[in-house]
Amino acid sequence: MQNYVTNTWYPLTWSRDIGRELSAHRIIEKDVVLFRSTEGTVIAMEDACPHRLLPLSMGKLKGDHVECGYHGVTFDCAGSCVRVPGQDMVPANARVQTYPTHENMGLVWIWMGDPELADPATVFDLEQYHDPSWTSVEGDALHIRANYLSLADNLCDPAHVSFVHQTTLGNAAGEDVPVQYAQEEGKMLTWRWVNDAPPIPLFAKFGNFKGNVDRWHYYHYYAPSIAIIDFGSADTGTGAPEGNRDDCIQIFACHFMTPVDQENSIDHWLHVKNFKADEETNLALSASFREAFAEDKAILEAIEINENKYRGRKKIKIAIDAAPRRMRKMVEQMSAEESLVEA
Amino acid sequence: MQNYVTNTWYPLTWSRDIGRELSAHRIIEKDVVLFRSTEGTVIAMEDACPHRLLPLSMGKLKGDHVECGYHGVTFDCAGSCVRVPGQDMVPANARVQTYPTHENMGLVWIWMGDPELADPATVFDLEQYHDPSWTSVEGDALHIRANYLSLADNLCDPAHVSFVHQTTLGNAAGEDVPVQYAQEEGKMLTWRWVNDAPPIPLFAKFGNFKGNVDRWHYYHYYAPSIAIIDFGSADTGTGAPEGNRDDCIQIFACHFMTPVDQENSIDHWLHVKNFKADEETNLALSASFREAFAEDKAILEAIEINENKYRGRKKIKIAIDAAPRRMRKMVEQMSAEESLVEA
Amino acid sequence: MQNYVTNTWYPLTWSRDIGRELSAHRIIEKDVVLFRSTEGTVIAMEDACPHRLLPLSMGKLKGDHVECGYHGVTFDCAGSCVRVPGQDMVPANARVQTYPTHENMGLVWIWMGDPELADPATVFDLEQYHDPSWTSVEGDALHIRANYLSLADNLCDPAHVSFVHQTTLGNAAGEDVPVQYAQEEGKMLTWRWVNDAPPIPLFAKFGNFKGNVDRWHYYHYYAPSIAIIDFGSADTGTGAPEGNRDDCIQIFACHFMTPVDQENSIDHWLHVKNFKADEETNLALSASFREAFAEDKAILEAIEINENKYRGRKKIKIAIDAAPRRMRKMVEQMSAEESLVEA
Repeated sequence: MQNYVTNTWYPLTWSRDIGRELSAHRIIEKDVVLFRSTEGTVIAMEDACPHRLLPLSMGKLKGDHVECGYHGVTFDCAGSCVRVPGQDMVPANARVQTYPTHENMGLVWIWMGDPELADPATVFDLEQYHDPSWTSVEGDALHIRANYLSLADNLCDPAHVSFVHQTTLGNAAGEDVPVQYAQEEGKMLTWRWVNDAPPIPLFAKFGNFKGNVDRWHYYHYYAPSIAIIDFGSADTGTGAPEGNRDDCIQIFACHFMTPVDQENSIDHWLHVKNFKADEETNLALSASFREAFAEDKAILEAIEINENKYRGRKKIKIAIDAAPRRMRKMVEQMSAEESLVEA
Repeated sequence: MQNYVTNTWYPLTWSRDIGRELSAHRIIEKDVVLFRSTEGTVIAMEDACPHRLLPLSMGKLKGDHVECGYHGVTFDCAGSCVRVPGQDMVPANARVQTYPTHENMGLVWIWMGDPELADPATVFDLEQYHDPSWTSVEGDALHIRANYLSLADNLCDPAHVSFVHQTTLGNAAGEDVPVQYAQEEGKMLTWRWVNDAPPIPLFAKFGNFKGNVDRWHYYHYYAPSIAIIDFGSADTGTGAPEGNRDDCIQIFACHFMTPVDQENSIDHWLHVKNFKADEETNLALSASFREAFAEDKAILEAIEINENKYRGRKKIKIAIDAAPRRMRKMVEQMSAEESLVEA
Repeated sequence: MQNYVTNTWYPLTWSRDIGRELSAHRIIEKDVVLFRSTEGTVIAMEDACPHRLLPLSMGKLKGDHVECGYHGVTFDCAGSCVRVPGQDMVPANARVQTYPTHENMGLVWIWMGDPELADPATVFDLEQYHDPSWTSVEGDALHIRANYLSLADNLCDPAHVSFVHQTTLGNAAGEDVPVQYAQEEGKMLTWRWVNDAPPIPLFAKFGNFKGNVDRWHYYHYYAPSIAIIDFGSADTGTGAPEGNRDDCIQIFACHFMTPVDQENSIDHWLHVKNFKADEETNLALSASFREAFAEDKAILEAIEINENKYRGRKKIKIAIDAAPRRMRKMVEQMSAEESLVEA
């Protein structure tokens, strides 16, 4: 049983889905009810009335108060009980835990750890998302019946695209190109260049290339639950590998993972790109990503099942495992350090 | 893991559903097969052939004998084996347990404990059910994925109707009216009066009130699995609270609970009322109850899930918990006393 | 938890279903991927890539190589890794286990134990299957949610047909006829004759009998997972019980069982008969068997559930249990002997 990092901003859900209705979510094995306050901020509290444990999300939002659906016990945005129907006294221990939230990049972020440490300035951001010369398109909330670190393995691993995503993100040209990696504080970078090769299907569709291209994949993983895939292509010979990206097409495929519990995760994905911004292109691109990520989902869910079946089986190690293995150690260490501080 | 009271008459199923076919049931974690004998009495026996454990309910009823569907091993109404095909000798231990039953108020009642103690005179009865000036209407067998004591909590709790049943059995007038309770031998009574207030939706529909009414709710819980809700209304000023109920409308909502296992119960509900007896009113009233009890079901099932999730979590106590808490102690004690006698 | 015999040829699947696609199976709690090689032989290997445990059946068949669907790690027919994309070196431990297979009687047989001991000459065979004067018809792969030994019980038990299969394979005439049995090396034979009685429904439909018949059922069980039911009828008085079967109709109902895991089995059934070979008769006969075996399935699955519910309950023993009880001991002993050899 792995421990979760708690002192971090986790992506939880799309901002677009949180309004004036109570909304039930689950993250790191905790149930959370969300709503948007009359002032417009997102309130998050534990989704269980401390009286009989009914999910508060089954109750009613009245102004900025949440009324339990069973006996009308009512809580304010700070989680304090403000009413127990039928009696004047409110029990001293009648409160629910609340969690800091912040919104950025179309997502609600939540801080499940020590609220004192929650600094909105540290919520993840991608500069290009806000740049008007780039186009951002929100994708789905993809439920994957697998541990989020198995998805994180996948997102520290440019090699798999050649085999898993042959109709969208990869092609045979990349099959034998080794992967590079570099570990930084709280971050793992993996990458490779596939040069002077036919464009991958996605770029063949949306780019305007005459012949072979130089293609890069940079996978930026930010522990524990964010991954930004910077990938693009330029006509071979225009100097992309050396740094000239004037005539490239480039996409940031962003994965904002919610660790639901040990065996479930949600991948909130979106993409930010430097080319055609028309609705038709945006939808077609989302459709391609949807196809590709469904392929990952199928693989990760099958592996999750086999991890349980073959528990204790020694696996072989190959070169591309170096980055995922270090990524997992990094997350373990972050979690271990939190435990030390708490102890 | 709670223990069940066994020396008690439990409601098991509707009499109308038991005829000349084998019928499978489950109560306090035991499988029971029922059928109506040629003489018209309900026979109950353990639903497992002692040979290979096939449910006897998958066999055949031949006269008053049950023939196992696998090898034809046959039992009489007393559970004695009367035939083993292919051999003359019947093994001495070839018998199935039978259980005393009794029928009353449209239900089959079963005694799962010491058969010596089963006295049909002690089966629950409601006088008005048999009174021709009252009308009885059978409802459903509502399956609830929750422990029956969680349903019993609900039936020692007049306060929840103001919040859970706002379109049928409750309204805002009752929200802050405290609940009274009185414990008697094997019984818990909880009640409250909501006076000089608009009628609840159900009474507004079926009563003929000019203005405000005085309304009572008396919840009679008989341990471990019966609850009779006596509720009604009269025009304010006609003296109902003081005892004059000449022009009231009154309903006994009866709940006959079957504890299936730790996490499943069946609520056999019916209603007995002192007003309009036409079929249309009967059906409309049943529809209102069906709507209300579905609301209870949703809440109890959500709580059942959370009781498991938050096992060991200390809950807050409020005034209305007094009666349910005492009810649970009463049932525990009944079960503990049985264990003492057995030991 | 029972142990499985491993040094035996198990029926696994229909030959007709194995071609040039990867096909996933499960037997004695092991996942196996099958495909037909370019030379036409059936290759079987463990269905898990030793790198990340993705089922190899989710990968690609390329010639006679299996390429994992995640990172392209590739194995040959002997289970040796022949390629790890992105690197030259193949890890020494990169191999998957393979299993000997053989085809006979329309089925793929697999040897899960010591491959040194796998001798194709010992794969089960039925002479009549290959005799042109008999007709063989393949049935289904019937999934039964029960332990295969529970199905084997059923196949050492001619008595049940009188009660379970009254519309097809049995009738009342057999109810009280005792069963004979004889144990041989690795085999259990059970049988009975029901003489001078009306034909069973199946024979009434397909035979051409004037009146009563003499009917035999010989159940040949070959440990651990094969059963051949030889049954037939002849006009009473023509001497069938004494050995004259000139004018009989006779069927071998063959059951080739795959023990999937402790609680799941697959019954591959087919029939071989000495009468009408037209397609219509073949289909009608299969339909009758399908009806009968669905009756067995219902019973075995109900028993499987109750075996778990009533764990530890002492069951009664009757005469017909002698053969199934000895059959189970035989299988236990086979498995115990294997463990001794391994230790």
